[in-house]
Amino acid sequence: MAPRKLHVGVAGLGRMGKRHALNFHQNVPRAVLVAVTSPDAAEREWAAENLAPDGVAVYESYSDMIAHVGLDAVCVASATAVHAEQTNAAIAAGKHVLCEKPLGTTVEISQSVVDAAATRPDLKVMCGFSRRFDASYRDAYEKTKSGLIGRPSVLRSQTCDVLDPSGFFVAYAQFSGGIFVDCSIHDIDLALWFFGQESKVRSVHAVGITAVEPDLRQYDDRDNAVGIVEFYDGRIAYLYASRMMAAGQEDTTEIIGTKGKLSVNLIPVENHVRIYGQEGIRHELPQNYWGRFQAAFTREAIEFTECVLDDKPVPVELESAVTAVRIGAALQRSMIMGNKIHFDEGGNEVNRAQL
Amino acid sequence: MAPRKLHVGVAGLGRMGKRHALNFHQNVPRAVLVAVTSPDAAEREWAAENLAPDGVAVYESYSDMIAHVGLDAVCVASATAVHAEQTNAAIAAGKHVLCEKPLGTTVEISQSVVDAAATRPDLKVMCGFSRRFDASYRDAYEKTKSGLIGRPSVLRSQTCDVLDPSGFFVAYAQFSGGIFVDCSIHDIDLALWFFGQESKVRSVHAVGITAVEPDLRQYDDRDNAVGIVEFYDGRIAYLYASRMMAAGQEDTTEIIGTKGKLSVNLIPVENHVRIYGQEGIRHELPQNYWGRFQAAFTREAIEFTECVLDDKPVPVELESAVTAVRIGAALQRSMIMGNKIHFDEGGNEVNRAQL
Amino acid sequence: MAPRKLHVGVAGLGRMGKRHALNFHQNVPRAVLVAVTSPDAAEREWAAENLAPDGVAVYESYSDMIAHVGLDAVCVASATAVHAEQTNAAIAAGKHVLCEKPLGTTVEISQSVVDAAATRPDLKVMCGFSRRFDASYRDAYEKTKSGLIGRPSVLRSQTCDVLDPSGFFVAYAQFSGGIFVDCSIHDIDLALWFFGQESKVRSVHAVGITAVEPDLRQYDDRDNAVGIVEFYDGRIAYLYASRMMAAGQEDTTEIIGTKGKLSVNLIPVENHVRIYGQEGIRHELPQNYWGRFQAAFTREAIEFTECVLDDKPVPVELESAVTAVRIGAALQRSMIMGNKIHFDEGGNEVNRAQL
Amino acid sequence: MAPRKLHVGVAGLGRMGKRHALNFHQNVPRAVLVAVTSPDAAEREWAAENLAPDGVAVYESYSDMIAHVGLDAVCVASATAVHAEQTNAAIAAGKHVLCEKPLGTTVEISQSVVDAAATRPDLKVMCGFSRRFDASYRDAYEKTKSGLIGRPSVLRSQTCDVLDPSGFFVAYAQFSGGIFVDCSIHDIDLALWFFGQESKVRSVHAVGITAVEPDLRQYDDRDNAVGIVEFYDGRIAYLYASRMMAAGQEDTTEIIGTKGKLSVNLIPVENHVRIYGQEGIRHELPQNYWGRFQAAFTREAIEFTECVLDDKPVPVELESAVTAVRIGAALQRSMIMGNKIHFDEGGNEVNRAQL
Repeated sequence: MAPRKLHVGVAGLGRMGKRHALNFHQNVPRAVLVAVTSPDAAEREWAAENLAPDGVAVYESYSDMIAHVGLDAVCVASATAVHAEQTNAAIAAGKHVLCEKPLGTTVEISQSVVDAAATRPDLKVMCGFSRRFDASYRDAYEKTKSGLIGRPSVLRSQTCDVLDPSGFFVAYAQFSGGIFVDCSIHDIDLALWFFGQESKVRSVHAVGITAVEPDLRQYDDRDNAVGIVEFYDGRIAYLYASRMMAAGQEDTTEIIGTKGKLSVNLIPVENHVRIYGQEGIRHELPQNYWGRFQAAFTREAIEFTECVLDDKPVPVELESAVTAVRIGAALQRSMIMGNKIHFDEGGNEVNRAQL
Repeated sequence: MAPRKLHVGVAGLGRMGKRHALNFHQNVPRAVLVAVTSPDAAEREWAAENLAPDGVAVYESYSDMIAHVGLDAVCVASATAVHAEQTNAAIAAGKHVLCEKPLGTTVEISQSVVDAAATRPDLKVMCGFSRRFDASYRDAYEKTKSGLIGRPSVLRSQTCDVLDPSGFFVAYAQFSGGIFVDCSIHDIDLALWFFGQESKVRSVHAVGITAVEPDLRQYDDRDNAVGIVEFYDGRIAYLYASRMMAAGQEDTTEIIGTKGKLSVNLIPVENHVRIYGQEGIRHELPQNYWGRFQAAFTREAIEFTECVLDDKPVPVELESAVTAVRIGAALQRSMIMGNKIHFDEGGNEVNRAQL
Repeated sequence: MAPRKLHVGVAGLGRMGKRHALNFHQNVPRAVLVAVTSPDAAEREWAAENLAPDGVAVYESYSDMIAHVGLDAVCVASATAVHAEQTNAAIAAGKHVLCEKPLGTTVEISQSVVDAAATRPDLKVMCGFSRRFDASYRDAYEKTKSGLIGRPSVLRSQTCDVLDPSGFFVAYAQFSGGIFVDCSIHDIDLALWFFGQESKVRSVHAVGITAVEPDLRQYDDRDNAVGIVEFYDGRIAYLYASRMMAAGQEDTTEIIGTKGKLSVNLIPVENHVRIYGQEGIRHELPQNYWGRFQAAFTREAIEFTECVLDDKPVPVELESAVTAVRIGAALQRSMIMGNKIHFDEGGNEVNRAQL
Repeated sequence: MAPRKLHVGVAGLGRMGKRHALNFHQNVPRAVLVAVTSPDAAEREWAAENLAPDGVAVYESYSDMIAHVGLDAVCVASATAVHAEQTNAAIAAGKHVLCEKPLGTTVEISQSVVDAAATRPDLKVMCGFSRRFDASYRDAYEKTKSGLIGRPSVLRSQTCDVLDPSGFFVAYAQFSGGIFVDCSIHDIDLALWFFGQESKVRSVHAVGITAVEPDLRQYDDRDNAVGIVEFYDGRIAYLYASRMMAAGQEDTTEIIGTKGKLSVNLIPVENHVRIYGQEGIRHELPQNYWGRFQAAFTREAIEFTECVLDDKPVPVELESAVTAVRIGAALQRSMIMGNKIHFDEGGNEVNRAQL
């Protein structure tokens, strides 16, 4: 008898949704993509062409997909604005959920997912911080845990996108939660991961500029932003996010410990080729996060599938996704308001006067 | 109706055979692994545990596997000594074949595969030169074809294995055809690919040493070898193969053209991590060709499957696999005999006196 | 007739003083080292052995050296605490001065040098920000000025020392002005250089930790510090300084523009050698700033000499050295006090309430 | 009393001669450039402008310069064709000599220098193989001697010049001795240095092409050449020389030992700057050997000066310069004639039939 496979539905068929759908369809041996859903007709047409011939059901309504017979799990890859709502609906329907980051753009919305998940401890609910599934980050994490660099004390991390001349990210800014919630959330998650749960945020401070897209200001956003996150146990994370890289995607992290340092992707590379010409020696690099993290997304889907089928705990704790949003949203606010924001050890914001 | 899938059987379940079997089983959406075969009981036991539960039939006899109902294609991943025999038997049975390199250790045996394939032009028969499916080599090839480096004139390429302290490669040397046929065959294939069919070999010359394994001499082999292949149209390939790398697999290629140069994997890397410590700044590298070329093997299997299902020509011409063996075997002979070997433009060896 | 040479005296023969003395003695064709001075007997003994045989006068008293017949210029390489005092005394005596950075640990002391220099416009007075003489920084600067990266908008820069297990830097901290004035001053100077005079600081904020040397707290210092400098014209510099690098000196800068990016010394290297072994592929790196910037110090001395002999303006404006101290001291204060510090466009600190 | 300084004269004021002259004039504290000579009026004019004002005598006749009162040593930097003649004349006149490589284009001429030097053991006579004075090569050598990589067994080395579109090197080819004597001589010297005197050449073989300059064939030369040098004690050096690099000077060496590997200048870099733009990430590299080896030439002059003043043995044995020419000339002949050349252990060529 063939082993049981996980029946998965993917919600959302935009840029990320298509990728998640194909990922589950082609690269996850223990999963079967059985259904997809999108409110967008063009996206459903794409699915009709590319997935339906293999027996994948295509739904217009999210709730119809949830009701698909035999569906075990949902991958929520829709717009950030509906992440939490769709995840909570899936939980209510008894489905396991892999939800794209972030859970929401506010702490309250994000927390609602944790609350919903708490009502169904039998379900696996995971927020997809893809870097936790990247081979390089994992290698760095293992080396850190092994003590190779002593106590990790300072983490520098950046999420820098290539300049999209279409200006797509300006319109996107109204819903994204801002550059710290949309981009730096990954770097914040890395800090929480590498520093561990004992690290509680003490203060955040950020500044930002609009070097190429002044229109972002109408949505209280910036195209380049730098932030510092200070932790109570004597650690610092400092972050940079940008929308204007000329060369490609530059997602770099350094973990500085008391006895050594690890860098991840310090010099991005597309492949193993170098080109020698009159302009010198050069190489190409990935143009977006998919180019950099495609294998991590596959790994994420494979492991989520395993967690459900083998009833193992998910590798990314749901609560930390809320903490990441808390920090990201505070950085965004600090950047816009110009002030430093302080937290007590319980994670609550405090007025400086109270300290 | 679900699309047709290619039913594949894998012959040989040694180190490479297991990898090919898992590859077809997990990573090739349009293929189904239906059968495997090995004369070795322990290998079949592995298959019984890891593949049979998913419905894969496990055979002791190769001919039994060939007779498996519905089998479309065979992946020959057994010992080099039986590559040609198994491939020819599969062709005779009307199966498509993906055969591991080399076709054989001699020109004659290799040619027999080409002859067999010629009798069945309806079948796809491909020799698996994995580097042709590697993203970096393909990128370098496309850039070369686009004229980026002018006329490719000199190719430096090396296949250098990490030292295996078990000495496995000494015993292996009796059947491998020698270091030029076993290792440099990849580099030779690259020269044939990048220089193209118009390049005809004019002479070869090689020298070798046993720096770490003098026992290789009993099988007329060496652990470090350097060779030069001269072509009639004014091009040179020079090759290095080694069994004693301390750091890991070092498979590097440089293509030097009249207007530029491309390097592939000049500094091998395992991933994107760098480690900073008292010994300096370091990074790890793949420890074997699988670590370096795993994705290429997947790509190879995916494309072979496509070629069969969509009736497209295979991307590696079978004849060039014979030429590669011709050159590799001549280099091996030159290394052992100490002489330079000359060819006429028809590919036949000539005595120097005749020139 | 032989061309006129600049007669130079070096004040201070500690670690840096010795280097400056030998530099002028051996590497500056148009200068002659004629005198040195140190209050320390052991240091004078070193000079007696190494410099006196070549005719260099060795003084115990600084004022005696200033009175050395024929002395044209002084290189002040003594303890930071006497930089300004010695520089001002030299100016009063009509000597040209090359003063090690920083001019002083406070704005007031630093400004006193500018004021003294203003009284003698005939003299060349330069603060030795060595990176401005480094070939790589200069190349990056020229490329930036040429417009290669568009408008430089974000500058990331770090000055990170290898861990000195002797703890020397703890005792040193009482006089150094703190990590931002001692180390980051270089990075601040780079921001002023690359952004130009039109950039006025708007705010600074910093945090710090004592990851390896808690004793630094008694001197209001830290061993790892991160700071952000915000400028009025929409630019950001963010800085990292550390005393605990395991691998060596890591002085790295990135200049991010609207159309490209330049990095300087992203991966420090000692030389052109790579070492391949079981630990992977590694290389060594300079162990201190002298190892990294030795050639820059020589260039600095050569150009200072030229400026005097040929009566050209010095390449580093003296005023910017005061601005650098202003920013560094504010960062240090922000780090210790925990608050963000704001400036008006005239460079004066303002209470947040006033904004 | 000031210490004694070495009075040096430089012969030849072409591209290299000018550099040697300025080098001794500006960068060698213990030497004084007292005289230069050139048969070329324009070159003497340059010296009249740039050196004479500092008291350097400018001669038309080499023998006049040799007769310069107080002259201690000569640096022979003239055309290769007169290296040996001028060196021998200087020896006859009792002068120490630093002679540019190669001593001559034939073994006989080169040997004449060794013979002349043997008559005056009191004189220091050194052939300037600049790489032996390069910090990176020295580091690699020290690491090799320390046993870090086990027994050095294979050496790959290349001397590759940027394409000079003026075609200067075609005219130059009539006097240079050919690409192996002109360029690869450095790589051959490295093999002799790293392998040591116990390594005796057993055979050489080379092939070459004219990829960009067919006119070279009239002088029996090529623009790209690959050669293998086999040693009796089980070692191999393989070499590549080229005149058509697009990106810059690429002088790379790898030393492969039984326990590790060292690479020198595997990826040439001009400085510490990387440039990020739409073409990817790139860096520049030195455009000629002076850009790469300038510091080595300074070191060479400093150490030659020390050897004379302190009566120490010169660091490069004169005999090895003859061996290098022997190997280089044999490679050149093999490339042109198409045959492999064998040597007995005494260094004499043997007919293959005799073996």
